[in-house]
Amino acid sequence: MNIDGKTALYLVVGDPIAQVKSPGLYTDWCVAHGVNAVFVPFQIDATEGAQVFDALRHVPNLGGLIVTIPFKPLAADQCQVLSPRARAAGAANVIRPIGDGQWAGDALDGVGCVAALRARDTEIRGTTVQLVGAGGAGASVAAALAEAGAARLAVDDLDAGRAADLASRLRREFPGVEASTGRLDPQEVTIFVNASPAGMAEGDPLPISPDAFGPGKLLVEMIMQPARTRLLEAAEAAGGAVVPGREVLDGQVAETLRFFNLS
Amino acid sequence: MNIDGKTALYLVVGDPIAQVKSPGLYTDWCVAHGVNAVFVPFQIDATEGAQVFDALRHVPNLGGLIVTIPFKPLAADQCQVLSPRARAAGAANVIRPIGDGQWAGDALDGVGCVAALRARDTEIRGTTVQLVGAGGAGASVAAALAEAGAARLAVDDLDAGRAADLASRLRREFPGVEASTGRLDPQEVTIFVNASPAGMAEGDPLPISPDAFGPGKLLVEMIMQPARTRLLEAAEAAGGAVVPGREVLDGQVAETLRFFNLS
Repeated sequence: MNIDGKTALYLVVGDPIAQVKSPGLYTDWCVAHGVNAVFVPFQIDATEGAQVFDALRHVPNLGGLIVTIPFKPLAADQCQVLSPRARAAGAANVIRPIGDGQWAGDALDGVGCVAALRARDTEIRGTTVQLVGAGGAGASVAAALAEAGAARLAVDDLDAGRAADLASRLRREFPGVEASTGRLDPQEVTIFVNASPAGMAEGDPLPISPDAFGPGKLLVEMIMQPARTRLLEAAEAAGGAVVPGREVLDGQVAETLRFFNLS
Repeated sequence: MNIDGKTALYLVVGDPIAQVKSPGLYTDWCVAHGVNAVFVPFQIDATEGAQVFDALRHVPNLGGLIVTIPFKPLAADQCQVLSPRARAAGAANVIRPIGDGQWAGDALDGVGCVAALRARDTEIRGTTVQLVGAGGAGASVAAALAEAGAARLAVDDLDAGRAADLASRLRREFPGVEASTGRLDPQEVTIFVNASPAGMAEGDPLPISPDAFGPGKLLVEMIMQPARTRLLEAAEAAGGAVVPGREVLDGQVAETLRFFNLS
């Protein structure tokens, strides 16, 4: 790649930052497509997010930000223009400047899930969704499914307040969805989403009972490491369909490039 | 190159920024030497320098800054540790973090000049220097020559106040040098330095009279575009030695890599 003074700069911001893969992923895409832009890791001390975000408004060659933990809620607060799904999620994971020091933000963690479901002709409109885990990624998936026409959506989280806040924001932004907290009767659920960390470590308990799965039921597993969780295997064994974390990410990449007007 | 979450980030800051060549130059060096670091252009609105510099203290994966117009004096102010030559120049063009949010700065625009002179066995100690142009680059060259042992140094600039300030800082930081303002008798001068912009455009007047040159006299021409200025040709025609701007830059690159602990 040839970096010069006209190269557009995209920052991947988070704390910590060493684990992120997106700088290489998006930079490689730009190189392959002849786009003069570079994505670099940009760690920000967790307590100084607001100061640094403010300063970045004064960097004219900044093409945009990809935002990761713990800055997604702050990123939403910093945007003057926010998509309904980002408002519903209460979080933004992408930001682009729109002139006059103003920023537009979106929550794209969840759109990859919708893209993956559409790619396999799964109808989202009218479905009943059980979300487990209301953190940044879970909130974004819930918002994307609500936007895509889910009829009912129950949010379960160990932090009951966080679940209630998300359900409330979903109702406000997407009045067509019946959003509640806690667990629905599994028989009524069409799409299960695991956006909790349960399943990342070997001995984790299953976040959803395997009895819930079966033909006609779908599991979206947001965990990427390991690629195949016990939950995902249980859903398949019961005859259900699954969308693994990797597929969710792939859908998100295309949407992110579009958001930045790079593709 | 493979950018990942562990890539050290170096910013080339200035306003404007589209003209800078250093991001590619240094990034290519890192790729060729297997160093996981990237240099990117980072434009900062000229009026917002202090705010953005402050914020950059909270970016832990920042390896350093290369500073260009108009931020070199501000960069010096922002450093907790400054080399004598940067103090004398009143400007820093490189900054590296040294922990606890503190920065060390140096003025390396001029060291390439000293390196180029040493490479051709030109003795600097005891010389008499006529500097024309007391901006950031000129100040840095004057400081580097004073540090290398020049005995007398006269600073000429259209802005008499700027010339007087530089001469005063040179005397303070390097008491061994006799620093003054204005022009010396050309017969007494060993090294002429053109750090003024005169010579960048076609019809510019010569900033130093061609009569000043001759055998045993040396001209350092800081202008790089065009590679051969009329002044440089006049000095050569008179039988004097010349150091073109490109050679000054080459010497600076090696010193910059050392400053960042990359080589």
